[in-house]
Amino acid sequence: MSPAGDAIPTQQDGPAADPQEVSSVLIVGAGLIGSSLGMALRNQGVDVYLTDRDPAAAHLAEALGAGRCLEPANEPELVVLATPPSTVGPVLIQYQRSYFNATFTDLASVKSQPQRDIEANGGDVSRFVGGHPLAGRERSGPGAARADLFEGRPWVLTPSAATSPLALARARWLAARCGAQVVTMTPERHDAAVALVSHIPQLMASLTAARLESADWDLVALSGQGVRDVTRIAASDPALWTQIMASNAPFILEVLDSLRRDLDEARDALAAVHTAGRSSALGGDPRLADSSTDRLMRPVTSLLERGNAGRGRIPGKHGAAPATYTLVPVVVADSPGELARLLVACGDAGINVEDVSIEHSQGQPVGLVEIAVRPMAAPVLAAALRQRGWSVHF
Amino acid sequence: MSPAGDAIPTQQDGPAADPQEVSSVLIVGAGLIGSSLGMALRNQGVDVYLTDRDPAAAHLAEALGAGRCLEPANEPELVVLATPPSTVGPVLIQYQRSYFNATFTDLASVKSQPQRDIEANGGDVSRFVGGHPLAGRERSGPGAARADLFEGRPWVLTPSAATSPLALARARWLAARCGAQVVTMTPERHDAAVALVSHIPQLMASLTAARLESADWDLVALSGQGVRDVTRIAASDPALWTQIMASNAPFILEVLDSLRRDLDEARDALAAVHTAGRSSALGGDPRLADSSTDRLMRPVTSLLERGNAGRGRIPGKHGAAPATYTLVPVVVADSPGELARLLVACGDAGINVEDVSIEHSQGQPVGLVEIAVRPMAAPVLAAALRQRGWSVHF
Repeated sequence: MSPAGDAIPTQQDGPAADPQEVSSVLIVGAGLIGSSLGMALRNQGVDVYLTDRDPAAAHLAEALGAGRCLEPANEPELVVLATPPSTVGPVLIQYQRSYFNATFTDLASVKSQPQRDIEANGGDVSRFVGGHPLAGRERSGPGAARADLFEGRPWVLTPSAATSPLALARARWLAARCGAQVVTMTPERHDAAVALVSHIPQLMASLTAARLESADWDLVALSGQGVRDVTRIAASDPALWTQIMASNAPFILEVLDSLRRDLDEARDALAAVHTAGRSSALGGDPRLADSSTDRLMRPVTSLLERGNAGRGRIPGKHGAAPATYTLVPVVVADSPGELARLLVACGDAGINVEDVSIEHSQGQPVGLVEIAVRPMAAPVLAAALRQRGWSVHF
Repeated sequence: MSPAGDAIPTQQDGPAADPQEVSSVLIVGAGLIGSSLGMALRNQGVDVYLTDRDPAAAHLAEALGAGRCLEPANEPELVVLATPPSTVGPVLIQYQRSYFNATFTDLASVKSQPQRDIEANGGDVSRFVGGHPLAGRERSGPGAARADLFEGRPWVLTPSAATSPLALARARWLAARCGAQVVTMTPERHDAAVALVSHIPQLMASLTAARLESADWDLVALSGQGVRDVTRIAASDPALWTQIMASNAPFILEVLDSLRRDLDEARDALAAVHTAGRSSALGGDPRLADSSTDRLMRPVTSLLERGNAGRGRIPGKHGAAPATYTLVPVVVADSPGELARLLVACGDAGINVEDVSIEHSQGQPVGLVEIAVRPMAAPVLAAALRQRGWSVHF
């Protein structure tokens, strides 16, 4: 038993099951997620075998330190399927025929359909537990892999009644080894969650970005940080996301239908204001129309207010409550070494910098650096930087 | 004439009109935008008078260095309306009665309706040109103001046929003094642009975030960076945004209707896949269903692809083409001074850091720092950092 095996407590689950040490892991699929998993396990000294239907991907992952390419003599104790959702069922059934003593888990971002596929097609469900680490990037492939991809992230496990204690314990060991936080739920509850916090946001980002595809350039040129943030994940891989959304259609539809009702109410309110505006434009003081506009716009105001409330519930980067950090804005010269000088000053003041964002403007010699620190550290930092001559705007 | 008056070339407009020096500016409305304007002008030595229907706001802005509170004897040459869109018409007409020799511009985020209000209610249109600097924050009020808010941002001017050359020249001077890039277009074209790049993204962010308002906490707890980015601007002020959307209803409706058609196509595709899945779940190899799923999902794939294309057209932070920078990932210890040491090393290597993002994980002693640099500088930086012993993942 390794002391690291139970180092990461689970948040939702109380005391973990006895840590089950695993000596060898086979990862099927050497993309971003599979390769990141391999790197994380190799860093912990675990034997990792890799395979991919594209041998070049497996070799690249091997070169990057994610494990060794699978050989016929290898006998993994744990097989991890890092393949797209619709392939989890068939690939599991295939590998269960090769490794009689192994237990299995997967990393796919939907859980109900693979579970049904396995049950309907004669897979050994006792040796399997579904899993999904909530981690990823817009980039894909082994070249984008990172050993720390899963650190501090939730890792959902979806055991069925048939899942053996050994299969579950090994999956828990896997998540703990990667520094993730285990959360157990049913496949259906997991799929409802990812529809809400991942698949619907993806769809909304793509719908927003698609408006820009054929818009005139002078209109797109006015884009700022708002639309840039809303559409960042619209850069994701269409083939992968088509499959994810197809696999989770029922749960996406449920959220989409409520979203569409809100959208239609907002649309109707805007249409009513437009119509009222055209009739009142024939004369009259526009201030007099304000109260009736307010009334007509009520569904939009309500939507914006509910958006405020919903946004406020999203946990921060560290899983803590949102708005945990305070920003200390500092104006700096946009030249090599200036940012370093600033951060040296932060270090000298004994302040741990939680995040840094830099905004600077075309053709301007200065930029604004916003230093995120714990709220109690902010006035201390501001005073220390001012004393050292920095232009602090706190 | 000041040498700074023509220091900022306009991108779209060719040679600027003769710079017109203005000695005093009255800003009506001491919120985020009006106060930021005052600070920018005061930094350039311009006389600035401030007024607000809330005297406390004007006094706070004065204390923060955004100008002096307006007195009866003041005679501004240029009056800038920094008030919500629906008030621009009435407030303009009121102030035109007080300052016969002044020219006027505004900063509201919609342009057609204020222009119509002024024309329909007897304003002096020759002394007015509409304006909108594309800059803002989720925070509001004079306390959030920044002198550099407009630097490098587009500043749209919407002259009408009646606008006098003097009114236009003074508005150009104003934008140039703030370091902004002047773009001229019609009020209607401006409003079509902001519907596309600002108002629709706001609506989509709020629609996404509103799903989270009453969702169970264990579902919201699985939120990651994707939904966090999509919903960032959902934190904006509902009252202000209600008014902006009401003022730009016709242009928002146009974009919203095309978005709704895409949404409905995606919805119908997901419903068809769901129905087909239920009938095929009664038996059969899920792999056989793949090609028919692909066909049914074609509208979703197409939407995701168009989202890729649209996202790719958004200009970068510096107004340059997107993806101008290359990221150099470095693993660093999460302790005071480490980030500074890293950035000192970047400065020693003579590399200008364009942006920095930091990801670190709960309970972990290391974080990943991604350093954004010009593409040609990336391999140089990676080699220099490796030589100095940094864990570079480039």
